[in-house]
Amino acid sequence: MTQPQSTFQRVAEHMRDTAKLESTVALLEWDDHTYLPSGAGAYRAEQVSFLSGLIHQRRTTSELGGWLNDLATSPLAGQRETPEGAAIAGWLRDYRRQVRLPQALVEATAKATSLGQQAWVAARSADRWNDFKPHLHEILNLRRQEAELLADNGQLYDALLDQYEEGARASEITILFAELRDQLVKLLADLQARGQQPSGLSWRRSINLPLQREASPWIAALIGYSFERGRLDETAHPFCTTLGPNDCRILTRYHEDNFPSGFYSTLHEAGHGLYEQGLPSDWYGLPPGAAASLGVHESQSRLWENFIGRSEAFWRWCFPHLQNRFGSAWQELDAEQVFRDANRVEPSLIRVEADEVTYNLHILIRFELEQELITGTLQVDDAPQAWNDRYQRYLGIKPPTAREGILQDVHWSAGLFGYFPTYTLGNLYAAQLMLALQKDLGNVNELLEQGEFEGVLQWLRDKIHVHGRCVPPAELIRRTSGQPLSAEPLVAYLREKLEVAYRMV
Amino acid sequence: MTQPQSTFQRVAEHMRDTAKLESTVALLEWDDHTYLPSGAGAYRAEQVSFLSGLIHQRRTTSELGGWLNDLATSPLAGQRETPEGAAIAGWLRDYRRQVRLPQALVEATAKATSLGQQAWVAARSADRWNDFKPHLHEILNLRRQEAELLADNGQLYDALLDQYEEGARASEITILFAELRDQLVKLLADLQARGQQPSGLSWRRSINLPLQREASPWIAALIGYSFERGRLDETAHPFCTTLGPNDCRILTRYHEDNFPSGFYSTLHEAGHGLYEQGLPSDWYGLPPGAAASLGVHESQSRLWENFIGRSEAFWRWCFPHLQNRFGSAWQELDAEQVFRDANRVEPSLIRVEADEVTYNLHILIRFELEQELITGTLQVDDAPQAWNDRYQRYLGIKPPTAREGILQDVHWSAGLFGYFPTYTLGNLYAAQLMLALQKDLGNVNELLEQGEFEGVLQWLRDKIHVHGRCVPPAELIRRTSGQPLSAEPLVAYLREKLEVAYRMV
Repeated sequence: MTQPQSTFQRVAEHMRDTAKLESTVALLEWDDHTYLPSGAGAYRAEQVSFLSGLIHQRRTTSELGGWLNDLATSPLAGQRETPEGAAIAGWLRDYRRQVRLPQALVEATAKATSLGQQAWVAARSADRWNDFKPHLHEILNLRRQEAELLADNGQLYDALLDQYEEGARASEITILFAELRDQLVKLLADLQARGQQPSGLSWRRSINLPLQREASPWIAALIGYSFERGRLDETAHPFCTTLGPNDCRILTRYHEDNFPSGFYSTLHEAGHGLYEQGLPSDWYGLPPGAAASLGVHESQSRLWENFIGRSEAFWRWCFPHLQNRFGSAWQELDAEQVFRDANRVEPSLIRVEADEVTYNLHILIRFELEQELITGTLQVDDAPQAWNDRYQRYLGIKPPTAREGILQDVHWSAGLFGYFPTYTLGNLYAAQLMLALQKDLGNVNELLEQGEFEGVLQWLRDKIHVHGRCVPPAELIRRTSGQPLSAEPLVAYLREKLEVAYRMV
Repeated sequence: MTQPQSTFQRVAEHMRDTAKLESTVALLEWDDHTYLPSGAGAYRAEQVSFLSGLIHQRRTTSELGGWLNDLATSPLAGQRETPEGAAIAGWLRDYRRQVRLPQALVEATAKATSLGQQAWVAARSADRWNDFKPHLHEILNLRRQEAELLADNGQLYDALLDQYEEGARASEITILFAELRDQLVKLLADLQARGQQPSGLSWRRSINLPLQREASPWIAALIGYSFERGRLDETAHPFCTTLGPNDCRILTRYHEDNFPSGFYSTLHEAGHGLYEQGLPSDWYGLPPGAAASLGVHESQSRLWENFIGRSEAFWRWCFPHLQNRFGSAWQELDAEQVFRDANRVEPSLIRVEADEVTYNLHILIRFELEQELITGTLQVDDAPQAWNDRYQRYLGIKPPTAREGILQDVHWSAGLFGYFPTYTLGNLYAAQLMLALQKDLGNVNELLEQGEFEGVLQWLRDKIHVHGRCVPPAELIRRTSGQPLSAEPLVAYLREKLEVAYRMV
């Protein structure tokens, strides 16, 4: 073995061991969101904080710095898209960021966000903004300190955003989102002027929870999510988390009077899960075994949830199966009605329940507010009012409670500032991927009408999953879709589908 | 603060941090036994092994050794039963043991036992001894290496036993168990000669699993187990585990045709849980916040499971409640019949389902076999035959399958050699504690007939739980019960109760 190769192996082993700690923290957090006894929250925060400190130590040892310095100038680093080259690039990128952060800040953030999420669950449930406010204040303060340590050019928000979406810039996103907003507002006006609004009534039929609890794993397994390498649990705010190369868990929630909530959050999280299960497991814990970015991750969840799960072809196949499961509750319905209700567009208060058009306006609001919070032009005390004002401006509605307003999302309680724009980036990416998928497979709707998902999944595996973090996100999407990122494919997809759902064609 | 005090604080902080890792390993293992996806076992073993190595490093740093040396000769160490004195004694004891063990051995044992338990679950379920044999070979080999490193005087088995029951010696236990065995064999003969054997039929009535799943948390909560600081899940082999000062979880299993199995394993594990929940939580992670020994732990679980849960007074109170819950399934039964069936004595194959008399013979068999395995006078290859021969000799029955024979217990797959005798020690301790409890409270049966368990729990809290690991186990039992350990109280208790159950009085 050459010197660079043996150094590479040494770093890889170090990183694989670090991943054992990271995946253990993921278990601590998964358990916190599922089965943790109510009295055990404070100690759980201590555990997460302590392990986060250990992880940070391992990520920033000077020994590691020395090895990475050697690798940076070695021939192995030359080829950016080989697994070795990508690993070195990813390690250097992560190391240079981590080494700027003092361990005390990392531990304090881990503890504050663990307690913050627990406080958020209680505050949201009780609709008490004031119970959560001091936590948000503390978390924001810690994340701002982090941004100040990381931001070379003074762009605090970009320093955070870059952790979730490598290479993304708020200035560019702002332009892209403005174009998207203008197009969506126009589409919304067209639907209202010329379309026939779906009633949404089929969606409000009550479905017993036991039936929903059977339908969710059924559809997740059918699209290819492996329950030998994962599981499905219930939680307050659905998410997907990876605890090992063969352990990616998804979580959903059920409401008797809101079947689509649980069904679509399952499809969404299963979409994330399929990506994680499709990453090269031999490289687990190293960049080639990791997701490209949060935006790419979201493109996978959105593709399954919306582009597939809300398509007319999907419902032609799925409807009779669910009708059979739900018996009397779904009598006198038909596939077209469910398809149309699945695509009802209407300004609403809750992001995760929003339709595909207004969803991006929810994201825009958060994107604007969190930039202002991080830069300090908006104070935490004023945030609920700013939230409500923005909802009035963009969606024409006003949240009656904090629970339906600023308390609805878990993200800020978990310290995730700079995360929200990746949701809309995911929608944009997914639209471009769907075009390429159609082009390559030709017959996607025919497959969906047969309930055949394997071809779609295999295409995603080959084009996206297998690459891990070897190709930067913007390049991965550009290369796979054959075009640079723009609002147009998403708008065209929405217009085409919604003109059918609104009986305009 | 004096010098010893500040050193004490430093060690305490070090130990509290170490406990954050230990409790995290407990979560990794709890999850392994409950919700881990089937494909994720190998990586879970890697995680447990890696964290065990970190823990071992922290337990054996030379810095810690220096601090402990200073404390050993300080005035704080002088008073053995103050929390500080007990903490120092416990730390020294643990350090001196740990420092003899190489990290590679600790990590290898953690990995082998994690994989061993997974292999045991599969082998037991499929009744395939050969699938488990290589694991047992490996685990035994590792534990023997450990014993050789720890045993000063060459008594390998004592070196392992001492980890679970401080100060216990196999030679003394052998004498005690022989006395107990003789008395129990005599009691068994008396019951068979003069008693009226309960039919056991009431116990075999089928109870729907949903009803059992409600009855178990109901009884656990009634005896005082806190679900704010714990939870109850299902697993293959019931256990109790502590994940933090306010997070002690119990696990049980249910069989539709064997209601007492789930009910009594719940009472048993809840008894363990009450002890853990009663330890001084301010001292969590330090000796004053830890259990005195496994034998004392088992005295608590047995006391609730058997001394209370199989008493006539308990069933007078409990029967109508369960009859009400179970409806038609428990029609035409009465409290006396259930009490008698709960005390049916009969040689049987499965330890955890055994009656209180023959249970100790099951333990004796394991105690003898594991001594022979550790010292090498018995080979793993010959163990199933030796197991079956011993069952023939002591219980007059022969296991038809490995599943009902040597594969029935999780312990050896988890590396727990030297653990089994603590079960019978727990029975002996519990009998002595019950005598003292009767003496202090006077009216225990009256309380049980009313379903009032608080007085009993409070007595246990005051006499046992609150002391943590401040008093060595033999001394704790001697002091609380006012007499040294002997077989007599357990035999007298069994004879008195069984003569009623067998209608001999």
